[in-house]
Amino acid sequence: LTSKLPDVGTSIFAVMTQLATEHGAINLAQGFPDFNPPAALTDALVRHAQGSQHQYAPMPGLPRLRELIAEKIARIYGVAAPDAGTDITVCSGATEALFAVITAVVRPGDEVVVLEPAYDSYAPAIRLAGGRPVYVPLRLPDFRPDWDQVRAALSPRTRLVMVNTPHNPTGAVWTAADWQQLAELLRGTETLLLSDEVYEHMTFDGRPHRSALQHAELRERAFVVSSFGKTYHATGWKVGYCVAPAALSAEVRRVHQFVTFAVSTPFQLAIADVLGDAGSYDYLPAFMQQKRDLFGQLMQGTGFELLPSEGSYFQLARYQQLAPGGEADVAFARRLTREAGVAVVPVSPFYHDGTDHGLVRFCFAKQDDTLRAAAERLQQFA
Amino acid sequence: LTSKLPDVGTSIFAVMTQLATEHGAINLAQGFPDFNPPAALTDALVRHAQGSQHQYAPMPGLPRLRELIAEKIARIYGVAAPDAGTDITVCSGATEALFAVITAVVRPGDEVVVLEPAYDSYAPAIRLAGGRPVYVPLRLPDFRPDWDQVRAALSPRTRLVMVNTPHNPTGAVWTAADWQQLAELLRGTETLLLSDEVYEHMTFDGRPHRSALQHAELRERAFVVSSFGKTYHATGWKVGYCVAPAALSAEVRRVHQFVTFAVSTPFQLAIADVLGDAGSYDYLPAFMQQKRDLFGQLMQGTGFELLPSEGSYFQLARYQQLAPGGEADVAFARRLTREAGVAVVPVSPFYHDGTDHGLVRFCFAKQDDTLRAAAERLQQFA
Ligand SMILES: CSCCC(=O)C(=O)O
Ligand SMILES: CSCCC(=O)C(=O)O
Repeated sequence: LTSKLPDVGTSIFAVMTQLATEHGAINLAQGFPDFNPPAALTDALVRHAQGSQHQYAPMPGLPRLRELIAEKIARIYGVAAPDAGTDITVCSGATEALFAVITAVVRPGDEVVVLEPAYDSYAPAIRLAGGRPVYVPLRLPDFRPDWDQVRAALSPRTRLVMVNTPHNPTGAVWTAADWQQLAELLRGTETLLLSDEVYEHMTFDGRPHRSALQHAELRERAFVVSSFGKTYHATGWKVGYCVAPAALSAEVRRVHQFVTFAVSTPFQLAIADVLGDAGSYDYLPAFMQQKRDLFGQLMQGTGFELLPSEGSYFQLARYQQLAPGGEADVAFARRLTREAGVAVVPVSPFYHDGTDHGLVRFCFAKQDDTLRAAAERLQQFA
Repeated sequence: LTSKLPDVGTSIFAVMTQLATEHGAINLAQGFPDFNPPAALTDALVRHAQGSQHQYAPMPGLPRLRELIAEKIARIYGVAAPDAGTDITVCSGATEALFAVITAVVRPGDEVVVLEPAYDSYAPAIRLAGGRPVYVPLRLPDFRPDWDQVRAALSPRTRLVMVNTPHNPTGAVWTAADWQQLAELLRGTETLLLSDEVYEHMTFDGRPHRSALQHAELRERAFVVSSFGKTYHATGWKVGYCVAPAALSAEVRRVHQFVTFAVSTPFQLAIADVLGDAGSYDYLPAFMQQKRDLFGQLMQGTGFELLPSEGSYFQLARYQQLAPGGEADVAFARRLTREAGVAVVPVSPFYHDGTDHGLVRFCFAKQDDTLRAAAERLQQFA
């Protein structure tokens, strides 16, 4: 059996998590919190575990959960609510939502513009659909798109442009002006937009998250993906969703129906119990900013040069001073795990060609004590 | 946007469930129990909901759950245990397992042999991968394969043969002789086997379920899919798995990693807590047989002619006497829902060309009282 994805190995997140375990390292690699979901949510799960709704949910998701998602979108983005009946599809995590969108719209020979560094599931999903990723590097040091390069990457065969804000792994957050630039480039084309907004609640310093849903022109052609795993510190629950106009959502559902059919009923019920309470997510920007700031302070004097993080779970850092010989980022990340006892993710695996800027990614979505313990180890390593 | 699955509408299961709700009908249509999972399982979920493991599970599944699956397979099939490290992948339900296998092995131009009637996700998954389903009708009235027709359907381009035992929707159960016939046809070819065994614990009258895993020659080329949703009356939990030799499993995982990444941690933990207890599934054949038998008795005098059900949740029935004019099965199923207040699934949607044998499917995985109430309505309809 010849592989359809011969160059796909174990994901760098799993590799580093594994290495962390082997070396007893503190895991600031994979993007997940080391604290629990809110008690209101786990209490709700306890209730529904004791209840009697353990059979298939409707294919597109529980109607009540979809209504609450629609209301939340209207509330936080100040836009018309999507139609809960037709425009929202609950998926087995944002990963399945991304996969279903790509599989629904990309055909053999289609091109998909991907801004790099990019999350590792994008390109394999495109390739499995027979499409061709067309990569555009984001510009250092602030990881903004170079709009001329994006324009040059577009062609009549561009089926889809994929964007991600707040951005993994860089923490860059798009402004209204960024969306406006994209809208101008796509105007008059048939190109669709897939916007990965799983860190929508993690933006810092008063900067708002701007959603593709807030740009009327883009919204008509946009699939917007989000994640209850990220919003509710429950990455292991695997519940996310896709919002898109009815005709586009119909195609997502046609695929979702045969990929996983439906999402776990007890989790959907539990999330629906808390989602109506804006307090269940409004605290997140301040909560995560405090962690970013704490981590930044603790890292002073370690020799790592921290790049700005405007949002997400993540903080990039240059390690040049700690590896004067010009060590590759993957080698450095492994050495740091072994020798300092702190696992991070190197950034080169987020590039299709392994571009190495000498950067590693820290995940600061951790208990303050975890961040303190990690920084202490890094201080000793310096 | 032109659809990649233009002829895919809402699945017949969802259509009939919806119609049942509208008409207050008893739902014997969609394949799910109307009773709860075992208390040991929901108690375990309560414990894990209160625990601290809410983040990503490992991509192929929790190691402890995979170990228990391997042990169970060795125990119930009397075969060498699969390697829990390499051969088992926990998926978001059997649906995702089937999808991941098909996506991993089928390439554009490949042919996949599908025995009909067949579950509705097979063909769309094959088509999304660029493959071509090659349909072979099972022979009435016992729905066995016609081996000459299967042989005739095989070609050098046949990548995969898909089989399903115990069979949905017919309840047919394969014997060792059936597997032997298939093994002889595949010997010397590179054709792989995808065996959907989600009803493995529901076989009747002392008939054992024979797994592809019990046939040494087939096992080398087989992906075997099962479902905790079916085994534990928890179809809404969406946890299933695929067992295959290491090299084949590696390809499934390459796809699974980008389709859903991982399966919900609390559910995997809860299932692992009960799976080691053989009592949690050994009672199932007798339990479901009692329901089949009860339903059969209750249906006497309704005018439905019941076909044999050797296994699964399902019972086919001819409705000819109740629709002397030769009503189409879809029309009859809708009329039965409206006029008798009992929802069933017509069988023609399980055929790519809508072959109509005048049959409907009853799901008897219901509380005895539900079966009694349904039969009472059907007696009045007659
Ligand atoms: C699905 S594992 C990766 C989690 C994540 O979002 C990340 O670490 O980037
Ligand atoms: C996923 S809905 C269908 C459930 C089922 O297995 C059936 O009714 O055949």
